[in-house]
Amino acid sequence: MDFHELSDIPHSVEQREDFSGEKVNPLIVFYPRSEEDVVRIVKFANSNKIPIIPWGSGTSLTGAVSCDKNCILIDMSRMNKVIEINEIDWYVRVQPGMKLVDLFEELEKKGFMLPPDPASFFLCSVGGAVSESSGGMKGVKYGSFREWVLAIKVVLPSGEVVKIGEPLRKNRAGYDILHLFVGSEGTLGVITEIWLRIIPLPKRKIVTILALLRDFESAGEVILGLRKNRILPELSEYVDSDVIKALNKHLNAGLKETEGGMLLISVEEDLVNDVLKVLDGKAVEVKVAEGEEAEKLYSLRAQAAIAVKAEAKNVFYAEDIVVPISKLPEAIKRLKEIGNKYNTKFYVISHIGDGNLHPNIVIEDEELRQRAFEEIARMAIELGGSVSGEHGIGVQKAKLMAEQLIKHNGYRVLDLMYQIKRLIDPNDIMNPNKFVELSYKLADSYK
Amino acid sequence: MDFHELSDIPHSVEQREDFSGEKVNPLIVFYPRSEEDVVRIVKFANSNKIPIIPWGSGTSLTGAVSCDKNCILIDMSRMNKVIEINEIDWYVRVQPGMKLVDLFEELEKKGFMLPPDPASFFLCSVGGAVSESSGGMKGVKYGSFREWVLAIKVVLPSGEVVKIGEPLRKNRAGYDILHLFVGSEGTLGVITEIWLRIIPLPKRKIVTILALLRDFESAGEVILGLRKNRILPELSEYVDSDVIKALNKHLNAGLKETEGGMLLISVEEDLVNDVLKVLDGKAVEVKVAEGEEAEKLYSLRAQAAIAVKAEAKNVFYAEDIVVPISKLPEAIKRLKEIGNKYNTKFYVISHIGDGNLHPNIVIEDEELRQRAFEEIARMAIELGGSVSGEHGIGVQKAKLMAEQLIKHNGYRVLDLMYQIKRLIDPNDIMNPNKFVELSYKLADSYK
Repeated sequence: MDFHELSDIPHSVEQREDFSGEKVNPLIVFYPRSEEDVVRIVKFANSNKIPIIPWGSGTSLTGAVSCDKNCILIDMSRMNKVIEINEIDWYVRVQPGMKLVDLFEELEKKGFMLPPDPASFFLCSVGGAVSESSGGMKGVKYGSFREWVLAIKVVLPSGEVVKIGEPLRKNRAGYDILHLFVGSEGTLGVITEIWLRIIPLPKRKIVTILALLRDFESAGEVILGLRKNRILPELSEYVDSDVIKALNKHLNAGLKETEGGMLLISVEEDLVNDVLKVLDGKAVEVKVAEGEEAEKLYSLRAQAAIAVKAEAKNVFYAEDIVVPISKLPEAIKRLKEIGNKYNTKFYVISHIGDGNLHPNIVIEDEELRQRAFEEIARMAIELGGSVSGEHGIGVQKAKLMAEQLIKHNGYRVLDLMYQIKRLIDPNDIMNPNKFVELSYKLADSYK
Repeated sequence: MDFHELSDIPHSVEQREDFSGEKVNPLIVFYPRSEEDVVRIVKFANSNKIPIIPWGSGTSLTGAVSCDKNCILIDMSRMNKVIEINEIDWYVRVQPGMKLVDLFEELEKKGFMLPPDPASFFLCSVGGAVSESSGGMKGVKYGSFREWVLAIKVVLPSGEVVKIGEPLRKNRAGYDILHLFVGSEGTLGVITEIWLRIIPLPKRKIVTILALLRDFESAGEVILGLRKNRILPELSEYVDSDVIKALNKHLNAGLKETEGGMLLISVEEDLVNDVLKVLDGKAVEVKVAEGEEAEKLYSLRAQAAIAVKAEAKNVFYAEDIVVPISKLPEAIKRLKEIGNKYNTKFYVISHIGDGNLHPNIVIEDEELRQRAFEEIARMAIELGGSVSGEHGIGVQKAKLMAEQLIKHNGYRVLDLMYQIKRLIDPNDIMNPNKFVELSYKLADSYK
């Protein structure tokens, strides 16, 4: 392939791997400096029918940016500026290659926050987080990225540049196609600018309650108790006892190793007693922390996946199921059963407050690992949940996504999604054979 | 037309008018009792290529449910039940024909709220509110309906029944096509069930500050002051001095008639002093109200449109522009200028906290009224705003929506929206010739 006409755009030939271990072997990697560069690359790719894969930081956990030899990788890392922080209209306008951690820092300086905080925030790009509709610890109160994107600029597969949405909270001009693009995993176009809603930093003191639980089952029961008592926490996170052991072993966490694992619940100060009442009888130890002490607890929680990775070495498969809150006790019980069946531990890390569980599968045998992975996802489908809450679908969950849509929504819904992909990307150049497209192709056996 | 095969479904022949004064003269009105009834009607309409218009309560302000002689009206009022209030998963599952006021009451009994509260809530249906992505007074903090819909069941134009979305806060299974349907004004299918996210009633005392302003300009300046001071109110509403006069005259409101009109700002108790500081020097009179006194103020605000209607008799055209908050002072100044030019008053009612203004045009001459209406909407477009925040597009704003999309987003965005309509409704039977479709047809002259 002759890339001569694009040779003034910075580029290289290199191989990569994403965080899920999928290989990325492109024909060429371009580093566009501007929207104009992106337009030229996309037009070239479209007329030559070469697949394009936009790359933020490669932190995908589902193979959303994998690529065989026949693709162009667009590495967005040079388009990494804040264009505007609007302190009156409360939005930030930013280029997609900016790291989320850098954006958080800029916003905090001005007294603002953008709540969704994926665990990879110190590495991942804003564009990646929007394309995956990433979540995080604050999701229980503030939702995931899809609730914070106001508008985007996007280079469509044809090379046309459009703005979708408006930097306004309210806008009724036409169908909401913005949300088609948010969470579309790079399959509909290349995002070149993003407007995100921001809000002031909380004015009230927030306090963190650490509870070391009596048993595994208590985790679900406590969350149910919060809901019954109409308590909406700022955060509510859970890691199981095996994760605590890994944290102690690999990160010197110094946490007490109880049977039930650790629950962290943060609330505004005046709700602490309500939470303590819910915890009554469920915990071996309860501690109320604030300031630096609370931050240290969250930093341990944020590093939980690293500790598990260290423990599990190379075999590591992060699940990302969601179950209805009311089904948490059932889900936790069945996770245990599946673990026993496969004679393994799941190192459960979770945004438990919104029903989003990350059991980590550390079975060495690849086939067995895959089977356990599918069994967990099917359990979520059975309980009325979802195969993904925030890691997305990529290639690894396409088959399970088809199962979910067919069982919960109707095959026609998947078909409609695929028709929309074809409508927007008729030459199938945008991150092809993943997500909706792959799911659609794999669905034949379920119809 | 022979409707014989549907004759067991309750039906009538009647004429109606919606709240915008558009005529509704259907061939027949059906009152389906179940999803199955809806499926039969839609299949019949699709095979005979007869337009279908879903009707909630007819409170559209833009002609979204208008209909000439060649259509079937589906009156959803008999499908009006709450199916489930889930007190753990925090959603309500409801049929579309239920009145919003009845739903609010059911939720309140259980300690929950669904925040969006359109002024027509005592009349409008839940299905209508979802189809228009309605807003309301609480929008400044809680957004409009699109932020609260989790899933819907919908009868597609083909007669197929699908569920779109999941009653989960987090779900990454496929493109977000749910939000295509929310706010689609009945042009993509007939909604038969809705899952809405609910949250506990506020735990903290909320206090209302009434400010009678020195002058019209102060309204915008106060809102800017709140934003600069990072204060996010629960509500912030404004009506101008002419609206106050109408309230006094027609509803015996007993409000002091100041030059600047009335601002109502509600905040959690501990923020009152911060708000008072912002108001300093801008108000002739300031009062802090709570409980019944505060409720009375909001009830007056809610009845403002009725008072204006009484004053203006039959000539009444409710605008619904949005401008960026930072452009509020400029927008208010230009509204005044347009009023002077047309020698009229605009009776401004507004959700000022989110930049959503409802100037009411009371010019008797129809052509002049239409010109003023368009001039106001174009001013919003020029300032980076939107021609509609919450009333939608229907037939009356289709041309202006085209202008907005072409100026702000690119013609291709409107084209894409129209292609999606064609994809989902190839026979063009669902509420045809309105909203996106009409906008697309009228856009030719702007390309």
